[in-house]
Amino acid sequence: MELKEAIKKRQSIRAYEDKPVPEEKLKNVLEAARLAPSGNNRQPMKLVVVKESKRRQELGQAADGQTFVGEAPIVIAAVATEPEHIMSCGVPRYPVDLAIAVDHMTLAAVDEGLGTCWIGAFSQERVKEILKIPHKYRVVALLPLGFPRREKERKIRKSLEEIVCYETFTD
Amino acid sequence: MELKEAIKKRQSIRAYEDKPVPEEKLKNVLEAARLAPSGNNRQPMKLVVVKESKRRQELGQAADGQTFVGEAPIVIAAVATEPEHIMSCGVPRYPVDLAIAVDHMTLAAVDEGLGTCWIGAFSQERVKEILKIPHKYRVVALLPLGFPRREKERKIRKSLEEIVCYETFTD
Repeated sequence: MELKEAIKKRQSIRAYEDKPVPEEKLKNVLEAARLAPSGNNRQPMKLVVVKESKRRQELGQAADGQTFVGEAPIVIAAVATEPEHIMSCGVPRYPVDLAIAVDHMTLAAVDEGLGTCWIGAFSQERVKEILKIPHKYRVVALLPLGFPRREKERKIRKSLEEIVCYETFTD
Repeated sequence: MELKEAIKKRQSIRAYEDKPVPEEKLKNVLEAARLAPSGNNRQPMKLVVVKESKRRQELGQAADGQTFVGEAPIVIAAVATEPEHIMSCGVPRYPVDLAIAVDHMTLAAVDEGLGTCWIGAFSQERVKEILKIPHKYRVVALLPLGFPRREKERKIRKSLEEIVCYETFTD
């Protein structure tokens, strides 16, 4: 699929078909994350791929009760393994590195005919317990992955004029 | 360009041709950011597009002296306009939202035959002064944009086995 089409088609999918994701498609999604850039190319990331039904349901409960998360045939937890580093601009590096990788996966999923939804509302401690993630690491997102059961309407976005300014900042 | 090709081809470009970027190409890059998802679709972002030579050079100086930043015909500053919000998982939302938008731009740039480089090493205060960005906002990345003068060798990345685990976390 063309990049432009993937960007246009990507949307948050909150209902999934009860149908497994072929391994090849999963692999292509993970490969997109693998190729993503990261600060100093440190690749400080683990992706925990969860397929077991009970564990997925536990993740859905841990995601502030967003049960649709557990209804996807796969849930990927994106884990930062170096959550301490602050860039010289003052911004923590780990959310940037992980977001790049997850963004790559959301686009690759569209390319595979799959849907995803960024999940940032979850209990950090509970997800770590469920997935046996060491305390020192940080889960940045849960990403349910599956065939979309229904799609939403078109994107609602600000205009370019609202988000772009030239030379210096203007509101 | 196919999404897969854009993901494979994207690399950090640190040398640019002295050649302006056509407006249509710039617009397509910005449009990719506009279509990017954000938490609760708040789109809490401004993109400051800098073309003036003197200002670009000042940004290069502010970027820990990475002068190649100023040599690109365009530098885009990605500014978070809601830098306070913490997601319930404990991760700040603004680096995630902004990284998604910038990641979209880096891929769209490849699609347009352009190069970019994520810059996270810069003085937050100095960049705000140069671009007259209100103190309450947060610059997450500088993104030089231009035609690549030379390309690097292939990506060096961990294997899938090193970054992916199944069901529960394993090192």
